[in-house]
Amino acid sequence: MATSSLRKGELTRQAIVEHAARMASLIGLEGLTIGALAEELKLSKSGLFAHFKSKEALQLQALEFGIGRFVDTVVRPALAAPRGEPRVRALFERWVDWPRASGLAGCMFVALSTELDDRPGAVRERLVQSQRDWLDVIANCVRTGIAEGHFRKELDAEQVAHELYGIMLANHHAVRLLRDKQAGPRTRRAFERLLGGARAKAKTAPR
Amino acid sequence: MATSSLRKGELTRQAIVEHAARMASLIGLEGLTIGALAEELKLSKSGLFAHFKSKEALQLQALEFGIGRFVDTVVRPALAAPRGEPRVRALFERWVDWPRASGLAGCMFVALSTELDDRPGAVRERLVQSQRDWLDVIANCVRTGIAEGHFRKELDAEQVAHELYGIMLANHHAVRLLRDKQAGPRTRRAFERLLGGARAKAKTAPR
Repeated sequence: MATSSLRKGELTRQAIVEHAARMASLIGLEGLTIGALAEELKLSKSGLFAHFKSKEALQLQALEFGIGRFVDTVVRPALAAPRGEPRVRALFERWVDWPRASGLAGCMFVALSTELDDRPGAVRERLVQSQRDWLDVIANCVRTGIAEGHFRKELDAEQVAHELYGIMLANHHAVRLLRDKQAGPRTRRAFERLLGGARAKAKTAPR
Repeated sequence: MATSSLRKGELTRQAIVEHAARMASLIGLEGLTIGALAEELKLSKSGLFAHFKSKEALQLQALEFGIGRFVDTVVRPALAAPRGEPRVRALFERWVDWPRASGLAGCMFVALSTELDDRPGAVRERLVQSQRDWLDVIANCVRTGIAEGHFRKELDAEQVAHELYGIMLANHHAVRLLRDKQAGPRTRRAFERLLGGARAKAKTAPR
Protein backbone atom coordinates (compact mmCIF):
# COMPACT_ATOMS: atom_id res chain seq x y z
CA MET A 1 0.00 0.00 0.00
CA ALA A 2 2.71 2.45 1.01
CA THR A 3 4.74 1.65 -2.10
CA SER A 4 1.73 1.93 -4.38
CA SER A 5 0.73 5.27 -2.85
CA LEU A 6 4.29 6.59 -3.13
CA ARG A 7 4.34 5.46 -6.73
CA LYS A 8 1.11 7.27 -7.46
CA GLY A 9 2.50 10.41 -5.83
CA GLU A 10 5.67 10.14 -7.89
CA LEU A 11 3.78 9.74 -11.15
CA THR A 12 1.61 12.73 -10.37
CA ARG A 13 4.66 14.80 -9.56
CA GLN A 14 6.26 13.66 -12.82
CA ALA A 15 3.14 14.68 -14.77
CA ILE A 16 3.14 18.08 -13.06
CA VAL A 17 6.81 18.68 -13.88
CA GLU A 18 6.24 17.60 -17.48
CA HIS A 19 3.43 20.10 -17.74
CA ALA A 20 5.71 22.78 -16.29
CA ALA A 21 8.37 21.90 -18.87
CA ARG A 22 5.82 22.26 -21.67
CA MET A 23 4.73 25.64 -20.31
CA ALA A 24 8.37 26.77 -20.17
CA SER A 25 8.87 25.74 -23.82
CA LEU A 26 5.76 27.59 -24.89
CA ILE A 27 5.66 30.80 -22.87
CA GLY A 28 9.13 30.96 -21.35
CA LEU A 29 10.32 30.63 -17.78
CA GLU A 30 9.17 34.07 -16.70
CA GLY A 31 5.54 33.02 -17.04
CA LEU A 32 6.14 29.67 -15.32
CA THR A 33 5.03 30.54 -11.79
CA ILE A 34 3.52 28.24 -9.19
CA GLY A 35 0.29 30.26 -9.47
CA ALA A 36 0.11 29.95 -13.27
CA LEU A 37 0.85 26.21 -13.12
CA ALA A 38 -1.83 25.71 -10.43
CA GLU A 39 -4.38 27.54 -12.56
CA GLU A 40 -3.44 25.56 -15.67
CA LEU A 41 -3.71 22.21 -13.86
CA LYS A 42 -6.68 23.14 -11.63
CA LEU A 43 -4.63 22.29 -8.54
CA SER A 44 -4.32 24.23 -5.30
CA LYS A 45 -1.49 26.75 -5.23
CA SER A 46 -0.60 25.76 -1.66
CA GLY A 47 -0.33 22.10 -2.69
CA LEU A 48 2.04 22.96 -5.54
CA PHE A 49 3.99 25.28 -3.28
CA ALA A 50 4.48 22.39 -0.85
CA HIS A 51 5.88 20.36 -3.76
CA PHE A 52 8.23 22.97 -5.21
CA LYS A 53 8.94 25.48 -2.37
CA SER A 54 9.88 28.31 -4.79
CA LYS A 55 9.49 29.57 -8.34
CA GLU A 56 13.19 28.93 -8.98
CA ALA A 57 12.91 25.31 -7.78
CA LEU A 58 9.94 24.81 -10.10
CA GLN A 59 11.87 26.32 -13.03
CA LEU A 60 14.93 24.17 -12.25
CA GLN A 61 12.83 21.00 -12.14
CA ALA A 62 11.12 21.90 -15.43
CA LEU A 63 14.54 22.43 -17.03
CA GLU A 64 15.87 19.20 -15.51
CA PHE A 65 12.88 17.36 -16.96
CA GLY A 66 13.71 18.71 -20.44
CA ILE A 67 17.39 17.75 -20.06
CA GLY A 68 16.43 14.23 -18.98
CA ARG A 69 14.10 13.81 -21.91
CA PHE A 70 16.78 15.10 -24.32
CA VAL A 71 19.25 12.53 -22.97
CA ASP A 72 16.65 9.75 -23.27
CA THR A 73 15.40 10.58 -26.76
CA VAL A 74 18.50 12.03 -28.45
CA VAL A 75 21.79 11.35 -26.69
CA ARG A 76 21.47 7.80 -25.39
CA PRO A 77 19.97 6.20 -28.54
CA ALA A 78 22.44 8.05 -30.79
CA LEU A 79 25.41 6.86 -28.73
CA ALA A 80 24.26 3.29 -29.41
CA ALA A 81 25.09 3.79 -33.12
CA PRO A 82 28.49 2.54 -34.41
CA ARG A 83 31.43 4.83 -33.61
CA GLY A 84 32.49 7.56 -36.03
CA GLU A 85 30.44 9.04 -38.86
CA PRO A 86 27.41 6.77 -38.30
CA ARG A 87 27.21 8.00 -34.71
CA VAL A 88 27.48 11.65 -35.78
CA ARG A 89 24.69 11.00 -38.29
CA ALA A 90 22.56 9.37 -35.60
CA LEU A 91 23.05 12.42 -33.35
CA PHE A 92 22.03 14.70 -36.21
CA GLU A 93 18.90 12.68 -37.11
CA ARG A 94 17.67 12.48 -33.54
CA TRP A 95 18.45 16.13 -32.90
CA VAL A 96 16.49 17.26 -35.98
CA ASP A 97 13.55 15.22 -34.71
CA TRP A 98 13.85 16.44 -31.10
CA PRO A 99 11.29 19.31 -31.12
CA ARG A 100 8.65 16.78 -32.24
CA ALA A 101 9.92 13.84 -30.16
CA SER A 102 10.25 15.96 -27.01
CA GLY A 103 6.48 16.37 -26.68
CA LEU A 104 7.28 19.82 -25.24
CA ALA A 105 6.08 22.30 -27.90
CA GLY A 106 9.29 23.01 -29.78
CA CYS A 107 12.81 23.11 -28.40
CA MET A 108 12.86 24.16 -24.77
CA PHE A 109 16.58 24.92 -24.89
CA VAL A 110 16.39 27.40 -27.78
CA ALA A 111 13.48 29.17 -26.09
CA LEU A 112 15.29 29.40 -22.75
CA SER A 113 18.66 30.32 -24.27
CA THR A 114 17.41 33.68 -25.51
CA GLU A 115 15.26 34.28 -22.44
CA LEU A 116 18.02 33.58 -19.92
CA ASP A 117 21.10 34.97 -21.64
CA ASP A 118 20.83 38.22 -19.68
CA ARG A 119 19.51 36.74 -16.41
CA PRO A 120 22.10 35.43 -13.96
CA GLY A 121 21.08 32.72 -11.52
CA ALA A 122 20.85 29.00 -10.87
CA VAL A 123 18.54 28.27 -13.81
CA ARG A 124 20.84 30.00 -16.28
CA GLU A 125 23.86 28.15 -14.82
CA ARG A 126 22.13 24.80 -15.23
CA LEU A 127 21.14 25.63 -18.80
CA VAL A 128 24.69 26.69 -19.70
CA GLN A 129 26.09 23.49 -18.19
CA SER A 130 23.64 21.34 -20.16
CA GLN A 131 24.54 23.12 -23.40
CA ARG A 132 28.28 22.71 -22.78
CA ASP A 133 27.74 19.02 -21.96
CA TRP A 134 25.88 18.57 -25.23
CA LEU A 135 28.59 20.32 -27.26
CA ASP A 136 31.12 17.99 -25.55
CA VAL A 137 29.07 14.92 -26.51
CA ILE A 138 29.06 16.05 -30.16
CA ALA A 139 32.79 16.83 -30.14
CA ASN A 140 33.54 13.43 -28.57
CA CYS A 141 31.52 11.66 -31.28
CA VAL A 142 33.48 13.58 -33.91
CA ARG A 143 36.70 12.45 -32.19
CA THR A 144 35.64 8.80 -32.49
CA GLY A 145 35.26 9.55 -36.20
CA ILE A 146 38.86 10.76 -36.32
CA ALA A 147 40.02 7.66 -34.42
CA GLU A 148 38.09 5.41 -36.82
CA GLY A 149 39.71 7.11 -39.81
CA HIS A 150 36.41 8.53 -41.12
CA PHE A 151 37.44 12.13 -40.47
CA ARG A 152 40.68 14.06 -41.04
CA LYS A 153 43.32 13.72 -38.29
CA GLU A 154 43.74 17.48 -37.92
CA LEU A 155 39.98 18.12 -37.74
CA ASP A 156 38.92 20.52 -34.96
CA ALA A 157 36.14 18.47 -33.30
CA GLU A 158 34.90 21.40 -31.20
CA GLN A 159 34.63 23.55 -34.31
CA VAL A 160 32.45 20.86 -35.92
CA ALA A 161 30.25 20.75 -32.80
CA HIS A 162 29.94 24.55 -32.84
CA GLU A 163 28.99 24.60 -36.53
CA LEU A 164 26.52 21.74 -36.14
CA TYR A 165 24.85 23.74 -33.39
CA GLY A 166 24.48 26.64 -35.85
CA ILE A 167 22.96 24.33 -38.47
CA MET A 168 20.35 23.21 -35.95
CA LEU A 169 19.60 26.77 -34.82
CA ALA A 170 19.08 27.85 -38.44
CA ASN A 171 16.79 24.84 -38.90
CA HIS A 172 14.78 25.80 -35.83
CA HIS A 173 14.48 29.41 -37.02
CA ALA A 174 13.43 28.38 -40.55
CA VAL A 175 10.91 25.77 -39.35
CA ARG A 176 9.39 27.48 -36.33
CA LEU A 177 9.46 31.16 -37.26
CA LEU A 178 9.61 31.31 -41.06
CA ARG A 179 7.60 28.10 -41.72
CA ASP A 180 10.07 27.61 -44.59
CA LYS A 181 9.22 24.47 -46.58
CA GLN A 182 12.84 24.30 -47.74
CA ALA A 183 14.14 24.11 -44.16
CA GLY A 184 14.54 20.30 -44.15
CA PRO A 185 16.53 20.03 -47.41
CA ARG A 186 18.63 23.12 -46.54
CA THR A 187 19.50 21.69 -43.12
CA ARG A 188 20.55 18.35 -44.67
CA ARG A 189 22.63 20.08 -47.32
CA ALA A 190 24.42 22.14 -44.66
CA PHE A 191 25.08 18.99 -42.62
CA GLU A 192 26.47 17.11 -45.64
CA ARG A 193 28.75 20.06 -46.41
CA LEU A 194 30.00 19.96 -42.81
CA LEU A 195 30.68 16.21 -43.02
CA GLY A 196 32.22 16.59 -46.49
CA GLY A 197 34.78 19.04 -45.10
CA ALA A 198 35.45 16.76 -42.13
CA ARG A 199 36.12 13.56 -44.06
CA ALA A 200 39.49 11.96 -44.52
CA LYS A 201 40.51 12.49 -48.16
CA ALA A 202 42.05 9.07 -48.81
CA LYS A 203 39.14 6.91 -47.65
CA THR A 204 35.57 6.68 -48.80
CA ALA A 205 33.23 7.52 -45.98
CA PRO A 206 30.84 4.80 -44.83
CA ARG A 207 27.22 4.94 -45.88
CA MET B 1 7.97 77.80 -33.38
CA ALA B 2 5.47 75.23 -34.63
CA THR B 3 8.20 73.38 -36.52
CA SER B 4 10.53 73.45 -33.54
CA SER B 5 7.79 72.17 -31.23
CA LEU B 6 6.85 69.43 -33.69
CA ARG B 7 10.49 68.50 -33.93
CA LYS B 8 10.78 68.30 -30.16
CA GLY B 9 7.69 66.09 -30.05
CA GLU B 10 9.12 63.85 -32.73
CA LEU B 11 12.44 63.47 -30.96
CA THR B 12 10.72 62.57 -27.71
CA ARG B 13 8.55 60.04 -29.43
CA GLN B 14 11.67 58.58 -31.06
CA ALA B 15 13.39 58.33 -27.67
CA ILE B 16 10.35 56.59 -26.20
CA VAL B 17 10.20 54.08 -29.05
CA GLU B 18 13.95 53.45 -28.75
CA HIS B 19 13.47 52.71 -25.07
CA ALA B 20 10.62 50.35 -25.93
CA ALA B 21 12.84 48.56 -28.45
CA ARG B 22 15.54 48.13 -25.80
CA MET B 23 12.97 46.73 -23.35
CA ALA B 24 11.76 44.29 -26.01
CA SER B 25 15.36 43.09 -26.63
CA LEU B 26 15.94 42.62 -22.93
CA ILE B 27 12.73 41.22 -21.49
CA GLY B 28 10.78 40.22 -24.61
CA LEU B 29 7.60 41.62 -26.12
CA GLU B 30 5.27 40.06 -23.57
CA GLY B 31 6.65 42.34 -20.86
CA LEU B 32 6.55 45.41 -23.12
CA THR B 33 3.24 46.94 -22.06
CA ILE B 34 2.26 50.58 -22.06
CA GLY B 35 2.10 50.40 -18.25
CA ALA B 36 5.59 48.91 -17.91
CA LEU B 37 7.03 51.47 -20.32
CA ALA B 38 5.33 54.32 -18.47
CA GLU B 39 6.76 53.11 -15.16
CA GLU B 40 10.23 52.71 -16.65
CA LEU B 41 10.22 56.21 -18.19
CA LYS B 42 8.30 57.92 -15.33
CA LEU B 43 5.68 59.09 -17.81
CA SER B 44 1.90 59.03 -17.44
CA LYS B 45 0.27 55.88 -18.72
CA SER B 46 -2.55 57.89 -20.31
CA GLY B 47 -0.04 60.05 -22.19
CA LEU B 48 1.70 56.98 -23.59
CA PHE B 49 -1.64 55.41 -24.40
CA ALA B 50 -2.54 58.51 -26.43
CA HIS B 51 0.72 58.01 -28.34
CA PHE B 52 0.43 54.30 -29.03
CA LYS B 53 -3.30 53.41 -28.73
CA SER B 54 -2.63 49.71 -27.99
CA LYS B 55 -0.03 47.26 -26.73
CA GLU B 56 0.23 45.75 -30.21
CA ALA B 57 0.87 49.15 -31.79
CA LEU B 58 3.61 49.79 -29.23
CA GLN B 59 5.18 46.40 -29.94
CA LEU B 60 5.00 46.99 -33.70
CA GLN B 61 6.67 50.38 -33.38
CA ALA B 62 9.41 48.94 -31.18
CA LEU B 63 10.04 46.23 -33.77
CA GLU B 64 9.96 48.78 -36.61
CA PHE B 65 12.54 50.83 -34.72
CA GLY B 66 14.82 47.79 -34.51
CA ILE B 67 14.37 47.01 -38.21
CA GLY B 68 15.17 50.60 -39.13
CA ARG B 69 18.31 50.60 -37.03
CA PHE B 70 19.42 47.28 -38.54
CA VAL B 71 19.00 48.73 -42.04
CA ASP B 72 20.95 51.87 -41.05
CA THR B 73 23.85 50.16 -39.26
CA VAL B 74 24.16 46.83 -41.13
CA VAL B 75 22.39 46.69 -44.50
CA ARG B 76 22.94 50.12 -46.01
CA PRO B 77 26.66 50.53 -45.18
CA ALA B 78 27.41 46.94 -46.27
CA LEU B 79 25.66 47.45 -49.62
CA ALA B 80 28.07 50.34 -50.23
CA ALA B 81 30.96 47.83 -50.42
CA PRO B 82 32.12 46.61 -53.86
CA ARG B 83 29.91 43.92 -55.43
CA GLY B 84 30.62 40.25 -54.85
CA GLU B 85 32.74 38.71 -52.10
CA PRO B 86 33.77 42.08 -50.56
CA ARG B 87 30.08 42.94 -50.13
CA VAL B 88 29.30 39.56 -48.55
CA ARG B 89 32.25 40.12 -46.19
CA ALA B 90 30.98 43.61 -45.32
CA LEU B 91 27.54 42.15 -44.50
CA PHE B 92 29.17 39.55 -42.27
CA GLU B 93 31.38 42.06 -40.43
CA ARG B 94 28.54 44.48 -39.75
CA TRP B 95 26.17 41.67 -38.76
CA VAL B 96 28.67 40.26 -36.23
CA ASP B 97 28.97 43.72 -34.73
CA TRP B 98 25.20 44.38 -34.74
CA PRO B 99 24.32 43.37 -31.14
CA ARG B 100 26.86 45.94 -29.94
CA ALA B 101 26.18 48.56 -32.60
CA SER B 102 22.41 48.32 -32.17
CA GLY B 103 22.53 49.89 -28.70
CA LEU B 104 19.56 47.62 -27.89
CA ALA B 105 20.94 45.04 -25.42
CA GLY B 106 21.75 42.15 -27.75
CA CYS B 107 19.95 41.12 -30.91
CA MET B 108 16.29 42.02 -30.78
CA PHE B 109 15.46 39.70 -33.67
CA VAL B 110 16.90 36.55 -32.07
CA ALA B 111 15.07 37.34 -28.83
CA LEU B 112 11.76 37.93 -30.60
CA SER B 113 12.13 34.97 -32.98
CA THR B 114 11.89 32.42 -30.19
CA GLU B 115 9.28 34.40 -28.29
CA LEU B 116 6.93 34.86 -31.26
CA ASP B 117 7.34 31.58 -33.14
CA ASP B 118 4.19 30.18 -31.52
CA ARG B 119 2.21 33.44 -31.37
CA PRO B 120 0.25 34.42 -34.47
CA GLY B 121 -0.50 38.09 -35.08
CA ALA B 122 0.65 41.30 -36.72
CA VAL B 123 3.93 41.53 -34.78
CA ARG B 124 4.94 38.00 -35.75
CA GLU B 125 4.02 38.70 -39.41
CA ARG B 126 6.18 41.83 -39.45
CA LEU B 127 9.10 39.97 -37.87
CA VAL B 128 8.84 37.12 -40.39
CA GLN B 129 8.74 39.62 -43.27
CA SER B 130 11.84 41.42 -41.96
CA GLN B 131 13.73 38.12 -41.62
CA ARG B 132 12.77 37.03 -45.15
CA ASP B 133 13.82 40.43 -46.50
CA TRP B 134 17.18 40.08 -44.78
CA LEU B 135 17.74 36.56 -46.16
CA ASP B 136 16.90 37.97 -49.62
CA VAL B 137 19.46 40.76 -49.20
CA ILE B 138 22.15 38.20 -48.33
CA ALA B 139 21.19 35.92 -51.23
CA ASN B 140 21.24 38.88 -53.64
CA CYS B 141 24.73 39.85 -52.48
CA VAL B 142 25.86 36.26 -53.05
CA ARG B 143 24.36 36.45 -56.56
CA THR B 144 26.46 39.56 -57.32
CA GLY B 145 29.42 37.40 -56.31
CA ILE B 146 28.42 34.78 -58.88
CA ALA B 147 27.97 37.48 -61.53
CA GLU B 148 31.41 38.92 -60.69
CA GLY B 149 33.00 35.48 -61.03
CA HIS B 150 34.02 35.31 -57.38
CA PHE B 151 31.64 32.43 -56.62
CA ARG B 152 30.73 29.23 -58.48
CA LYS B 153 28.06 29.58 -61.19
CA GLU B 154 25.97 26.71 -59.81
CA LEU B 155 26.11 28.04 -56.23
CA ASP B 156 22.75 28.06 -54.42
CA ALA B 157 22.66 31.65 -53.11
CA GLU B 158 19.68 31.00 -50.83
CA GLN B 159 21.47 28.03 -49.29
CA VAL B 160 24.46 30.29 -48.53
CA ALA B 161 22.12 32.86 -46.92
CA HIS B 162 20.47 30.13 -44.83
CA GLU B 163 23.83 28.77 -43.66
CA LEU B 164 25.19 32.23 -42.89
CA TYR B 165 22.13 32.79 -40.71
CA GLY B 166 23.02 29.61 -38.80
CA ILE B 167 26.61 30.78 -38.33
CA MET B 168 25.31 34.02 -36.79
CA LEU B 169 22.82 32.22 -34.54
CA ALA B 170 25.59 29.93 -33.26
CA ASN B 171 27.72 33.02 -32.63
CA HIS B 172 24.92 34.68 -30.70
CA HIS B 173 24.36 31.52 -28.60
CA ALA B 174 28.08 31.10 -27.87
CA VAL B 175 28.62 34.78 -27.01
CA ARG B 176 25.44 35.62 -25.13
CA LEU B 177 24.56 32.38 -23.36
CA LEU B 178 27.80 30.40 -23.08
CA ARG B 179 30.16 33.42 -22.80
CA ASP B 180 32.50 31.29 -24.94
CA LYS B 181 35.80 33.13 -25.50
CA GLN B 182 36.33 31.04 -28.66
CA ALA B 183 33.08 32.29 -30.20
CA GLY B 184 34.74 34.97 -32.34
CA PRO B 185 37.41 32.73 -33.93
CA ARG B 186 34.91 29.87 -34.39
CA THR B 187 32.44 32.16 -36.14
CA ARG B 188 35.13 33.45 -38.49
CA ARG B 189 36.35 29.95 -39.26
CA ALA B 190 32.80 28.85 -40.09
CA PHE B 191 32.34 31.90 -42.33
CA GLU B 192 35.63 31.24 -44.19
CA ARG B 193 34.60 27.61 -44.71
CA LEU B 194 31.30 28.82 -46.17
CA LEU B 195 33.09 31.23 -48.53
CA GLY B 196 35.71 28.62 -49.40
CA GLY B 197 32.98 26.26 -50.59
CA ALA B 198 31.31 29.07 -52.51
CA ARG B 199 34.35 30.26 -54.45
CA ALA B 200 34.94 29.71 -58.12
CA LYS B 201 37.76 27.16 -58.44
CA ALA B 202 39.64 28.73 -61.36
CA LYS B 203 40.06 32.23 -59.97
CA THR B 204 41.74 33.48 -56.85
CA ALA B 205 39.26 35.27 -54.67
CA PRO B 206 39.88 38.95 -53.91
CA ARG B 207 41.28 39.93 -50.55
